[in-house]
Amino acid sequence: MGNWVVGIDLGATKIALGLIDPADRVVARRRIPTLAEDGPESAVERIAQQISDLQREVPDGSRIAAVGICTPGPVDHATGTIVDPPNLGWRNVPFRGMLSDRLGVPVALEHDAKAAALGEFHYGAGRGERSMVFIVVGTGVGAAIIADGRLYRGLHNSAGEVGHITLDPDGELCTCGNRGCVETYISGPWLARRYQRMLQRKGKPSPSLEEPITGETVAAQARAGDPVAMQVLTEAGEALGAAVATMAMILSIDLYVIGSSVARCGDLLLEPARRAVPRHCYQSVASHVRIVCTELWDDAPLLGCGWLARQTLAAPPAP
Amino acid sequence: MGNWVVGIDLGATKIALGLIDPADRVVARRRIPTLAEDGPESAVERIAQQISDLQREVPDGSRIAAVGICTPGPVDHATGTIVDPPNLGWRNVPFRGMLSDRLGVPVALEHDAKAAALGEFHYGAGRGERSMVFIVVGTGVGAAIIADGRLYRGLHNSAGEVGHITLDPDGELCTCGNRGCVETYISGPWLARRYQRMLQRKGKPSPSLEEPITGETVAAQARAGDPVAMQVLTEAGEALGAAVATMAMILSIDLYVIGSSVARCGDLLLEPARRAVPRHCYQSVASHVRIVCTELWDDAPLLGCGWLARQTLAAPPAP
Repeated sequence: MGNWVVGIDLGATKIALGLIDPADRVVARRRIPTLAEDGPESAVERIAQQISDLQREVPDGSRIAAVGICTPGPVDHATGTIVDPPNLGWRNVPFRGMLSDRLGVPVALEHDAKAAALGEFHYGAGRGERSMVFIVVGTGVGAAIIADGRLYRGLHNSAGEVGHITLDPDGELCTCGNRGCVETYISGPWLARRYQRMLQRKGKPSPSLEEPITGETVAAQARAGDPVAMQVLTEAGEALGAAVATMAMILSIDLYVIGSSVARCGDLLLEPARRAVPRHCYQSVASHVRIVCTELWDDAPLLGCGWLARQTLAAPPAP
Repeated sequence: MGNWVVGIDLGATKIALGLIDPADRVVARRRIPTLAEDGPESAVERIAQQISDLQREVPDGSRIAAVGICTPGPVDHATGTIVDPPNLGWRNVPFRGMLSDRLGVPVALEHDAKAAALGEFHYGAGRGERSMVFIVVGTGVGAAIIADGRLYRGLHNSAGEVGHITLDPDGELCTCGNRGCVETYISGPWLARRYQRMLQRKGKPSPSLEEPITGETVAAQARAGDPVAMQVLTEAGEALGAAVATMAMILSIDLYVIGSSVARCGDLLLEPARRAVPRHCYQSVASHVRIVCTELWDDAPLLGCGWLARQTLAAPPAP
């Protein structure tokens, strides 16, 4: 395309920016705290300053031509509105328009998991594929579906809500009020809860950790060889495999890319997942399924936003 | 369009033909036995005779302009080949080409559940909807997904294989080798098995029936007020609701149309299904879900084939 663009991942705690060159490489990065309490106007201003700063890294007098930004859901990509993400505390903010007005370039706004999926699809583990599911595991569990080269949104833009499909009707009581949801096995808070409970059951003391136990703690302990943490991750992997099998049966999609920090456990999580798939679907379907780690990690949402930014240059969103 | 077309449902035991007028009404029907042992050439000839016969019912010198035919899967719609449906015993038969050569008009070939879904979507319970899932319950359980107005096939043309998603990892051992598949609750053979077992458990004799108990027997007994059969259907409905909830979470589709004979149980099956949905998904998703009976019954595949026949006139398939 020949254009320079910026991708922005606006999270609850930090705003990450990436300057993307015409060859779709992130060539410079910035990272600032979110300061959600300052409100969206302040965020727009602070982002604009970072983009001015990134502009100085663009050679040959080129200008940053467009910007893509992603935030936690729910997001209305069509109107460019941040609806009411619980972690930001903003409600119905027309952020795309605010940022575009301030910067004077087209801006795309998308949900962070969908942006990361687009990044992974176009530039990462999904390169050359026709379809792919990107699964984000964090405080919750969600998926973004790319079918036949396009983001599949569904009627309410909520396709891929796999965190609360039932894996076991006799399973643990979930925060949603149902039992045995995917999240009760694999989300960060549940990894921590299962780990602590299993330690208690085995009469073992919690490891001497400074901070409260989180999903990342469990992942780190497992990587360090803690057998209890490894057991928790094995069960989480089996649940992930069951969820993937169900998606593979319904969607007839083969590639499942696991994003976010828990993916750093690699095969500690993914091998049990792969082994579980054939126990929950046709063998012919299981034989096609591939479960892999994100290739782009934190760059996935930045590159996905960059891809969306380029799309605005091809077809600007309606005002 | 102004064209007369014929839709054909080629099943294991019967071939049903419907003459469809330019206003998309089935205005004449024929029904002949399949005689699969005679082979595909014989079937083509016998179908051609029926179409000649139907041609006599077309007024004003119009000609039947195209034909759509559906058969049990697997079917390769792109090449017009019947691959190897177990109930027909035919293998890799280029049936579309054979029929088109004999009739001298374009022919479309599709899987029967997908054809029925298209019929229901364009002319039945799905009229005016953007997306819909058609669920067929019979010897097996399958679904055809229509998303944003188009049949969603997936990478291997096998999207919607909901019969073998896991509902309960501790459930009954399924013929597929896994446990607690949807089919172990709701397919015809399992309805019969569960009914007979529940009768035994309660020490009740089987009802005096001439034929072996089938899923249709259970459905008939339930409609006649047999409390054991009603209990079996309630549990089947709950399983159906769980499967629908999982699909609604993954697909973000609201309308689920239940086809085939078990749907004749109506609310005996569908009310437990509707009640079960919120126990297996977000309440916001459940609030959108509608589970309804087929409106077109046996005409759904005929009208779907008619719709496909009209598509061939708009864009004939490659030879």
